[in-house]
Amino acid sequence: MIIDGLQYCNWSEKIFKQWRMSNLTAVHVTIAYHEQFRETILNFEKWNSYFESFSNLILPAYSLKDIIYAKENNKTAVIFGFQNPSPIEDDIRLIEILHRLGARFMQLTYNNQSLLATGCYEEQDSGLTRMGKEVVKEMNRVGMIIDMSHSSEKSTLEAIEYSSVPITISHANPEFWHKAKRNKSNKVLRALSENNGILGLSLYPHHLKNSSNCSIEEFTNMIKDLIDLIGVEHIGFGSDLCQDQPDSIVEWMRVGRWTKNIDYGEGSPSNPGFPKMPSWFKDNEDWHKIFENLSQSGLTDNQIKKIQGENWYDFFKRTNSFR
Amino acid sequence: MIIDGLQYCNWSEKIFKQWRMSNLTAVHVTIAYHEQFRETILNFEKWNSYFESFSNLILPAYSLKDIIYAKENNKTAVIFGFQNPSPIEDDIRLIEILHRLGARFMQLTYNNQSLLATGCYEEQDSGLTRMGKEVVKEMNRVGMIIDMSHSSEKSTLEAIEYSSVPITISHANPEFWHKAKRNKSNKVLRALSENNGILGLSLYPHHLKNSSNCSIEEFTNMIKDLIDLIGVEHIGFGSDLCQDQPDSIVEWMRVGRWTKNIDYGEGSPSNPGFPKMPSWFKDNEDWHKIFENLSQSGLTDNQIKKIQGENWYDFFKRTNSFR
Repeated sequence: MIIDGLQYCNWSEKIFKQWRMSNLTAVHVTIAYHEQFRETILNFEKWNSYFESFSNLILPAYSLKDIIYAKENNKTAVIFGFQNPSPIEDDIRLIEILHRLGARFMQLTYNNQSLLATGCYEEQDSGLTRMGKEVVKEMNRVGMIIDMSHSSEKSTLEAIEYSSVPITISHANPEFWHKAKRNKSNKVLRALSENNGILGLSLYPHHLKNSSNCSIEEFTNMIKDLIDLIGVEHIGFGSDLCQDQPDSIVEWMRVGRWTKNIDYGEGSPSNPGFPKMPSWFKDNEDWHKIFENLSQSGLTDNQIKKIQGENWYDFFKRTNSFR
Repeated sequence: MIIDGLQYCNWSEKIFKQWRMSNLTAVHVTIAYHEQFRETILNFEKWNSYFESFSNLILPAYSLKDIIYAKENNKTAVIFGFQNPSPIEDDIRLIEILHRLGARFMQLTYNNQSLLATGCYEEQDSGLTRMGKEVVKEMNRVGMIIDMSHSSEKSTLEAIEYSSVPITISHANPEFWHKAKRNKSNKVLRALSENNGILGLSLYPHHLKNSSNCSIEEFTNMIKDLIDLIGVEHIGFGSDLCQDQPDSIVEWMRVGRWTKNIDYGEGSPSNPGFPKMPSWFKDNEDWHKIFENLSQSGLTDNQIKKIQGENWYDFFKRTNSFR
């Protein structure tokens, strides 16, 4: 069972076929960055059109049964998620509506302060807001996974503490390996794992040591160090793959509608677009390279299976998010 | 198994308790008259709050299993529906979204011309529109039941003809018993039943012979005549009960936002509000009176069971609307 904890590609039959070639059982796909509720509905509609057109390749994951069905029938189950709480606007009851439509992940913040918590680009981190605490309870109740990938330290620690079920950081790497605003401190990683949460490892170059030039061995060695820190069962993949996206999309991700100026996020004026992917993970065809390298590096088959997808599946079970 | 094919009450714990006292297994509740998509979402939210607060009495009916579960656990399953296609606005893909949220019935028109077909108050009946034909196909595909209660004759006949599964007239009576814009001709009733559809019998006084003074025996005798015309298996109840609603609601039902003037619909300037219910069916406590009278009138237990709810359940099965 192979599960990717986050992708935001320019979806196409080509990509769905690559998912099948790489034998991906399930993929968490972002369907909202800055979209409000009504706009998010249009993104669900777009996916419904994919499910109609490519029913031989993909299906929506509403329940764990759907994921098992996908595995047994050589299809890929699609799990929906939001990188920002914008789809719930200021209405806590939209969480249940969106969960029913298939949303299973929601970040409490993207890079900025939200109504719920603080993003990792803010100078002040005020932690969970009043509404943030109510939303965490409601997400726990309906089974929406709390994702703190783009949140700041204090907010993340408070979400871990306040949530009655484990949470995730679906796409980030450890700060001990590569210091970046989006990578996570040992303190956060320990709190996450002690509360039975899961970290999805990112392959987005800005999160990698040496960026686009990161070697597969460096990546694999980081995983081995991370196993020592938080235990193999709390690690999965969250590739953050933005395959086939034009650079206008990374600008949308960073800027949305919150500023009239350009914000380069992890990029820079001289490097404003999507960074070049590492040579060993260019797109959804390359998953096998990582698994092979993990094997060569001495990880057991059992460990690899867990990191490949079993950990995500167990996490879905223990958070009771797929009912 | 007792199923009511349409209610639009001022929902409360009192009403849900009456449902249980009367042993209603399922009720189709209207959640949109003139509401657009975004407003309809707020009505789903309101029902989610009822499901949270009164989980000992009610549950949402997404599948046939939910209806069976309700029956076995002494709860009432709630089936959502729209009296107007306004919730899908001009977007055919909203049908699948709304079906996923639980909508199982949609009228192609309320009293006026819609984007899809012609309502029973229009002078010209143009039948199914171009979009209407596309919507019928899509409703068939996703499992949304086509309801022509408020539609005009030609549009209704075309919907019966064009739909690949049986359709319903969820709340109306035969014109042969009481002539009214909302009651249906023998031609429509025959076409409906020949295509294996179902008529839900209305208890709304404007649809009854002698209006509020209709006797229970007159109602029962009409059912016996109707059995002779279309067969017992094509008959159910669709009470059209608007229990505890203030008169402002019947104005909303009739006028919505389509005119700045008053439209009295089936009422009149001297009788603008909700008509007085017949003495033998005042609210959801009175169901037993109808069933008892049907029994006294000579219908067999088997016939009564069918009309009470089994026919609706079989109709749900053969339209494959609850998946």
